[in-house]
Amino acid sequence: MSRIHKVASRSLHMGKLKRGDDLLGAISVICRENNIRLGRVEAIGAVEKATLGYYDQTRKEYDFFTIDTPHEITSLIGNVSLRDGVPMVHAHLTLSDEKGNVKGGHLAPGTIVFACETVIEAFEGLDFNRIIDEDTGLPLWQL
Amino acid sequence: MSRIHKVASRSLHMGKLKRGDDLLGAISVICRENNIRLGRVEAIGAVEKATLGYYDQTRKEYDFFTIDTPHEITSLIGNVSLRDGVPMVHAHLTLSDEKGNVKGGHLAPGTIVFACETVIEAFEGLDFNRIIDEDTGLPLWQL
Amino acid sequence: MSRIHKVASRSLHMGKLKRGDDLLGAISVICRENNIRLGRVEAIGAVEKATLGYYDQTRKEYDFFTIDTPHEITSLIGNVSLRDGVPMVHAHLTLSDEKGNVKGGHLAPGTIVFACETVIEAFEGLDFNRIIDEDTGLPLWQL
Repeated sequence: MSRIHKVASRSLHMGKLKRGDDLLGAISVICRENNIRLGRVEAIGAVEKATLGYYDQTRKEYDFFTIDTPHEITSLIGNVSLRDGVPMVHAHLTLSDEKGNVKGGHLAPGTIVFACETVIEAFEGLDFNRIIDEDTGLPLWQL
Repeated sequence: MSRIHKVASRSLHMGKLKRGDDLLGAISVICRENNIRLGRVEAIGAVEKATLGYYDQTRKEYDFFTIDTPHEITSLIGNVSLRDGVPMVHAHLTLSDEKGNVKGGHLAPGTIVFACETVIEAFEGLDFNRIIDEDTGLPLWQL
Repeated sequence: MSRIHKVASRSLHMGKLKRGDDLLGAISVICRENNIRLGRVEAIGAVEKATLGYYDQTRKEYDFFTIDTPHEITSLIGNVSLRDGVPMVHAHLTLSDEKGNVKGGHLAPGTIVFACETVIEAFEGLDFNRIIDEDTGLPLWQL
């Protein structure tokens, strides 16, 4: 059964990341600096290069791969919650190249911003804490 | 001409779906259980397999295809409105594999959750009722 | 360093675009007609054809390419801000074909709606003005 909880919108944060920023790291810093412990995030822009993950559901491990060329960020969708009491950003990305071909995956450190425009909405509500879920091996919310 | 109406945010719902859930079905149940008749939905996560649709604009029919391997959900974007007086979820999906290759389409029943984190925002406003639009053959909003 | 500002939700607008509309143009008209000078936009639907851009980070120029066949809009994510004092929509798109193959890029004029359902959230806050950023060559927010 799904575990869904009501949350409330607390604040909205809009702006740009800087060229050379680590995309995941920069969004994480914004959350920390604004005390965002729960929320949603979205972004578009471009990256100089990227590191993305794919979760192997059988081995229960992330495999990471790099994309070494500039791409548009066609979508970044993610959320903010807690891992070990600290805000953690979980986001997925799609990227497009000069022919419009698209790659995607789980956003990992090593994805470098060329330009990025983001909207982060902070929520209030119960704590969404991530702990390892035995069945999937993933750090999922204990709700 | 576009038909756009003002709506108002009524409530926010955040949480996870369960492994093995039908993705479209589980979101629909959440909407029904929370009396969400209008709104927007987003999600990221992973699926064990997927069934997606492509609308043939000439034949005016959906063609469905299946993706039989695990993929990341790189984006799920959708909305909630009414069809025959009942809440209906309309969502589109992109999925990525272990090489970062991306597939996508109209979310159909048969897409099975491995893990999924969703935010649903319920709106208040006039009824958005879907009825078949003769020109496109699609169930579009009668506004 | 990132430049992030607090904004506030002012209004929500939900509805459909018309078949034959220019996707970017129609969203821009909605923003103008509703006096939306800052905000976020999302959409799903389908296009009859599309023109997308890829920004060449070395030459500092957009390259545009066309997709001449019908596709699903698997995601449209974007924002609204000001360019020369006038609301400007900046959006990125992913599209899928009958096999689920996905293309994407920066939404440009020439992308023609078959059907499109959109949610636009207007924000209040300081002016987000785009001016050419020397480093990237892009019209970025002066914050």
